[in-house]
Amino acid sequence: MTGRQPPTGGAQRHPLPATVAPALAPAVGVGTGRPAVEVLRARAYLSRVAEPPAPALAAFVEVLGPVAAAARVQAGDVPGPVAGETAARRTTDRAEADLEAAHDAGARLLVPEDGAWPRAALAPCLLAGVPALAPPVALWVRGPRRAAELSERAVAVVGARAATSYGTHVAGELGAGLAAAGVTVVSGAAIGIDGAAHRGSLAVDGATVAVLACGVDRVYPAAHATLLERIAATGLVVSEYPPGSVPARHRFLVRNRLIAALGAGTVVVEAALRSGAQRTATDTEALGRVVMAVPGPVTSGPSAGCHQLIRDGALLVTSTDDVLEAVGRLGADLAPEPGLPARATDGLGRAAALVHDALPARGARDTRWLVRESGLPPDGIRAALTELERRGLARCCDGMWQLARPGGGG
Amino acid sequence: MTGRQPPTGGAQRHPLPATVAPALAPAVGVGTGRPAVEVLRARAYLSRVAEPPAPALAAFVEVLGPVAAAARVQAGDVPGPVAGETAARRTTDRAEADLEAAHDAGARLLVPEDGAWPRAALAPCLLAGVPALAPPVALWVRGPRRAAELSERAVAVVGARAATSYGTHVAGELGAGLAAAGVTVVSGAAIGIDGAAHRGSLAVDGATVAVLACGVDRVYPAAHATLLERIAATGLVVSEYPPGSVPARHRFLVRNRLIAALGAGTVVVEAALRSGAQRTATDTEALGRVVMAVPGPVTSGPSAGCHQLIRDGALLVTSTDDVLEAVGRLGADLAPEPGLPARATDGLGRAAALVHDALPARGARDTRWLVRESGLPPDGIRAALTELERRGLARCCDGMWQLARPGGGG
Repeated sequence: MTGRQPPTGGAQRHPLPATVAPALAPAVGVGTGRPAVEVLRARAYLSRVAEPPAPALAAFVEVLGPVAAAARVQAGDVPGPVAGETAARRTTDRAEADLEAAHDAGARLLVPEDGAWPRAALAPCLLAGVPALAPPVALWVRGPRRAAELSERAVAVVGARAATSYGTHVAGELGAGLAAAGVTVVSGAAIGIDGAAHRGSLAVDGATVAVLACGVDRVYPAAHATLLERIAATGLVVSEYPPGSVPARHRFLVRNRLIAALGAGTVVVEAALRSGAQRTATDTEALGRVVMAVPGPVTSGPSAGCHQLIRDGALLVTSTDDVLEAVGRLGADLAPEPGLPARATDGLGRAAALVHDALPARGARDTRWLVRESGLPPDGIRAALTELERRGLARCCDGMWQLARPGGGG
Repeated sequence: MTGRQPPTGGAQRHPLPATVAPALAPAVGVGTGRPAVEVLRARAYLSRVAEPPAPALAAFVEVLGPVAAAARVQAGDVPGPVAGETAARRTTDRAEADLEAAHDAGARLLVPEDGAWPRAALAPCLLAGVPALAPPVALWVRGPRRAAELSERAVAVVGARAATSYGTHVAGELGAGLAAAGVTVVSGAAIGIDGAAHRGSLAVDGATVAVLACGVDRVYPAAHATLLERIAATGLVVSEYPPGSVPARHRFLVRNRLIAALGAGTVVVEAALRSGAQRTATDTEALGRVVMAVPGPVTSGPSAGCHQLIRDGALLVTSTDDVLEAVGRLGADLAPEPGLPARATDGLGRAAALVHDALPARGARDTRWLVRESGLPPDGIRAALTELERRGLARCCDGMWQLARPGGGG
């Protein structure tokens, strides 16, 4: 097998010691413009050679660069952990076929060497040092938008498939509210909460990102064929799995780390205990992002996971404003103080407040009655009445005091 | 006015300096058996002479004892702050009439000198040092149960008058669940959540305590006439306001501190923003008790106050089990935390725990240092040290206090 031609057209091997810093790795086209063709072919190969998450492979590619790494993987000339991740598929090179299939499906391969790569969003996947959170070696994407820009102002909204009408209502409102505030909604395109969040965003012409657990050329779930088309037409459908990949069960959990990574925070709207949405929340926390959860009736099963998240430290959010405030680093979205209407009696001294409360809704009373009723001394009553009169809250008529409404209203 | 006979049958005046510790105050019958008649008459008079909360009067009575304090209040021979609280009503002595009215209504006056006084429950009202939380000088009670015993295992359940069917359902379930676990449900007998909590408790033959903002001989709200009779027949109806007192608006807020004090924690089930229930939660926290809130739909106005409480640090609870776990100090209800051995300091009162924490690991300190360090008043420190000494957690040597290890261990 070692004699086989590497998929990248014979790139030379530059065996760098494993301690070399990523910054010193070959920097051909990193982060700027269009990547070279051999880079795309190398990453297409690497994208299929290991089942994500593949932490050893990710580190190996980071150190050697994609072209050299691909050559060595294919040659079987790799350290043990990388071999463990790649041995089963290293001789299968479908790079060209995958790139072609993607093209036919209106998709393309997005690589870290591309300026549109969501570098800042995915950086914590490497930095967290958690194997399960390892970054993808590439992303297959479908849609007109650039992932780097969308993830700059993005929030993940996820939740149960078995959602209630309450949950889908709240998810839809959040999706629309975030989109209206210029925030990208990231979710998993599943039935239930995910779909409602995407639809809410689309309803106000927002850009939304669907991260799939299968190839971007597949329609899953089938009921969301139209939804996926709409997302691909205006936002971005994303997957780390090459074209044709089937949505195997474990891939949903693995995929969730990318949903978590692409947003500045994750809002969970309804989730069963020990659900995928809870896993997304765990990943979100491990990535140093904000975990948020929407409460619901304690009598509703699908809210139980959210309540547990809140007890475990997730931020309770009830509205788009709450979410924007929590991820406020995104911009100047700080929510106004929660709807506390100013009251005419705000800021009254204790005595004045007591006297105000003591005055009957109808009719008038003299100060002697107020002394008896409130238990305040006569001077206290007089000072309080002066304060109330000055604020327009009480008025005196023939020595009798009655309530007044500021502004003259009833 | 100074010539007028004091209401307590001519008790001699023993003007003690204001710095005298409560422990040195007249201890006639403190906490044991039935109190003397002159004590009852003195406290009946004091119960009407100031509008609660009356922190200066409470401290004055604590220092002088009720009989001497009542005589001096009536004579107007009191420090300025006490005069401020009592001047308006000090010449009104309706002690005999109030005791008679209570008797006619099947009620009685419960005083701190009575063994049934909920001493432990109300202690934080004094120790908190917050004027608005000042303890009552007496309680008018109606019902067969002893407040001291009921409050030993009690939880307050409060909430909105304008409750939804969801809220009243949850409150009823909690009331029944707590009662079934042998926990007293304390509430305010209001329409909505309060009533549902009381009813839930009664439905499983639990003892429930209603704390009123009017005299215990009054029926308020009128719609709860039957409910109040059922509570009085099996539990306890309590008020610090003398018979005949009307439920003036400010009294509901003042009353809430007693609801908070009589439970080991307070569960808020639906509450509007800036509601009375939120005030009870604030009082609960100030008293060092556990604040709990039940979440609900974010689309429901009456749950907004609960969600804000949770964001502010209240514990989210969804079931009776959650509540029992949160106030587990009550008894053996604690779901055993894996691997958390019982600590010698478990179950200490808040003040004692504070003082225990303040004492250095090595060396000894005098009480003056502890006052400075802990911020507690001197009597709070003394009471706390007594508790610590009794539990073998601190010992005194030549007026200096140091940590001790129970059982003599290191």
